[in-house]
Formats: sequence, C-alpha cells, structure tokens
Amino acid sequence: MNRLEILAVEGLGEIAAGCDLAAEIVSAASLEDGDVVVVTQKIVSKAEGRLRAVDAGDLVERRRLVEGESSRVLRRRGELLICETPHGFVCANAGVDFSNVPEGFAALLPADPDRSARRIRDGIRMHGSVGVGVVVSDTFGRPWRRGLTDAAIGCAGVLPILDLRGSEDATGRSLQVTEVAIADEIAAAAELVMGKDRNVPVAVLRGLPSSWLGSGSVTADLLRPAREDLFR
Amino acid sequence: MNRLEILAVEGLGEIAAGCDLAAEIVSAASLEDGDVVVVTQKIVSKAEGRLRAVDAGDLVERRRLVEGESSRVLRRRGELLICETPHGFVCANAGVDFSNVPEGFAALLPADPDRSARRIRDGIRMHGSVGVGVVVSDTFGRPWRRGLTDAAIGCAGVLPILDLRGSEDATGRSLQVTEVAIADEIAAAAELVMGKDRNVPVAVLRGLPSSWLGSGSVTADLLRPAREDLFR
Repeated sequence: MNRLEILAVEGLGEIAAGCDLAAEIVSAASLEDGDVVVVTQKIVSKAEGRLRAVDAGDLVERRRLVEGESSRVLRRRGELLICETPHGFVCANAGVDFSNVPEGFAALLPADPDRSARRIRDGIRMHGSVGVGVVVSDTFGRPWRRGLTDAAIGCAGVLPILDLRGSEDATGRSLQVTEVAIADEIAAAAELVMGKDRNVPVAVLRGLPSSWLGSGSVTADLLRPAREDLFR
Repeated sequence: MNRLEILAVEGLGEIAAGCDLAAEIVSAASLEDGDVVVVTQKIVSKAEGRLRAVDAGDLVERRRLVEGESSRVLRRRGELLICETPHGFVCANAGVDFSNVPEGFAALLPADPDRSARRIRDGIRMHGSVGVGVVVSDTFGRPWRRGLTDAAIGCAGVLPILDLRGSEDATGRSLQVTEVAIADEIAAAAELVMGKDRNVPVAVLRGLPSSWLGSGSVTADLLRPAREDLFR
C-alpha cells in the first residue's frame, strides 16, 4: 500500500432516535468494498436514543448523571471526573457529552459500541451491497499529553489490533513493537477531516490493506484490563 | 476540507549518521506547498548519530542504558520500565529502541525532536523550494488501552494543538472539546501507511487546512507538565 484517502461524509441530516444510520450513510457516501467507515459516538448515541434530559448548568445534576454512567471514579479535579465506565473505558465524565446535542440534553455512550458498529456494518451491507469495516469513535483525553484525540470505542469488520508478533524488521531482528492499535489510529486519522467545529460525523478511509479487515471487539481486544494496567 | 491523502514515501536509502534527511526526502517524494511530512524517530535518530552500541541480550546493560535516558522511572514490571525522559515524554524504556537498527546497537530519542523537525523543514525548503509542516513521530503505549499508536515527539510549521476555545458547535453551544491534539492525530494517521513490518519511515499528508500550518513545539505545547497530570 502506498496511498490512503480519508473522505469526509457531508450532508447527513439531523440524526434522531430510531434513525437508520446505515441507510443515511449509504445515501450520503459512495462506499466501496474494503472501505472503513468511521462514525462518531455522538450520532450513534442519538440514533440509539441515548440522550438524557439534564440541566447542564446544574452541577449536582451533572455530576449525578456522570456518576451513574461510571463503575469507578479514578480521579476528581473540580468538576472534572476521570471515570471507568461499565464497558471498561477510562475517560473524562464517563463519556457523557454536553456539546452538539440539543439544549437541555446530554449524550451518553452507546450501551454496547461494538454491537452498534456491527449493526451499522450489517445495515451498510444490506442497503449498499458493500462490505466495509466500521469504527465507532469518541474523543478522549489521555495522561502525559495535553489535548484530546479520537479513539475507537467499537468496531466491526476491522481488526482493533494488528498483531505483528513473530514478524521481523527490515534487518531480520524480531520486532519490538508488535501490537499496533490500528482501530485507534483509524479513529484519529478520521478526526482530521471531521473537526469538532465542522460537525462532520462520518468519514471513510479508502486504501487500507485488505488483511486488516477481520473481526474483533474494542471492548475485548483493545481495552486493557485494570489488572494489567500499571496506572490504575 | 473534504478529502485528505496520506502517501507513503518509499525508496529512501539506508540512513546513516550525518545523512541530510531533508535532501533524501525531497528526492524520494514529490512534495507540495502545504503538505505535512511525518518522519519516524528511527531515521531522525540515525541521521543524528543517536545510535549507541549495546548488547541487547545483556539485561543489566540494557537497563543501564534506559535508566541513563530517563529523568524518572514511573513504573517497573519485569524488564519493562515506564520512564519520563528529560524532554518530558512518558514512554516505555525511555524511547530506547532495539528494532530496525543494526545488530549490537540501540537508537536513542533525538536530543531535541522539535529542533530536528525544524531542521528537516528548513532543509526541505532549501532543497525542494516548498513550504511544508514536519512532524517527528514515535510509537508509544498508553494507559487504559492495549497496543501502541504513533504520537508526535517534535513538530515544525504545523500546530501541535488546535485550540477551539471560544468556538461553537453546530447548535450554537460552546464546544466542550476545545483542544485537539492534531500533531498526534497526524502521526497516528501516517502510521497507517508506514507499518512496523513494512519499514516506510516517511509519509506525507496532503489536504490539511492551511490554518493548521503554524508554529509550536511538542515539548512546550503538547506535553502535559507533571504538576497538571492526574496520573503522575
């Protein structure tokens, strides 16, 4: 492979609860077999009816909502809570999102983002007759580094981790870096054409190796269990 | 913007100490004004003579080298050390790299990766008469998630962080996500065409917004100081 394209999918209408996201994506994008479609959590949550009424200015109500979405609070600083969610994500405010949602509402994470990705993938195959991989992405902070990047919270039809164990480098030595989190790199790459202020909720990556199209789960394969984590 | 291209730059020769990386890149790639060129740490370290003789099988010698490149060891598990480097990076083994280097050697991080990026950028302008941004990337693990992703360790002519404070979302509410670590997303995106087993050390991103071409430093802008970090 020597060339990858990332295409912003524009022209999706407002997404409401019950909306068939796959059908919307098929009609807004010209998809091809082997594409990987990245869909932001926000519209997945909206389509799945994961909006909750909340007065975002009421800090007690806000915090109660965030704590209700957490299995564990790892750190608190002022109004910022770093939480572990029941899925196993570690992120600010348990992924509860107060922007790009209607006034008076917040968007919760999908209940099972891998399942969300599978449904979108199956729907795209049904409506568009193409086989694609799907990544559901969200925007997370991280320790050590300022700013936020997009990461994968669910996937279907694309490997979350590329396992290079047993491979050799160009000099014939076995590789030191053996597990590449390609689903997170795909989510980060897609964010470059989405933009928080541009409100493009879907992007397509065209030109990834076909060997990367496989099965796997973000929750099972990409999340590090707490017992293996040196910082939890 | 609705389309971004990521191009693998192939055909770079073996990089030796003192090599003019910018000249090599200009002759291997057809660069255009506004491109962002991502260069892996490995070839920057090689060109800058940052290889050190080490018997990689001698664990005491290995550990001594890693500790010498660290300002602080945050965690130890077996032979794995999570270190803070004098630059402020938090990473496994202080970024000391034992793959894709000649047998009997390890590659250290560049002494000042932002300066490395500036030199490459200036050299590309001189040899190729084009104005580009440059990101120097490396491959790091992270808490919470398995696998590794590429991140920026130096940059020149491209913003490390896109600051959207004061911007509004599509519904007119002020944005919750306000600082996007675009240099890290650029590094992650570039890795998708590089591949640890394919040994492509340079990639070009074409189509990023021209407003992202600006000045800034990974060390000054993208690294989170320990006092602001909730996990150090």
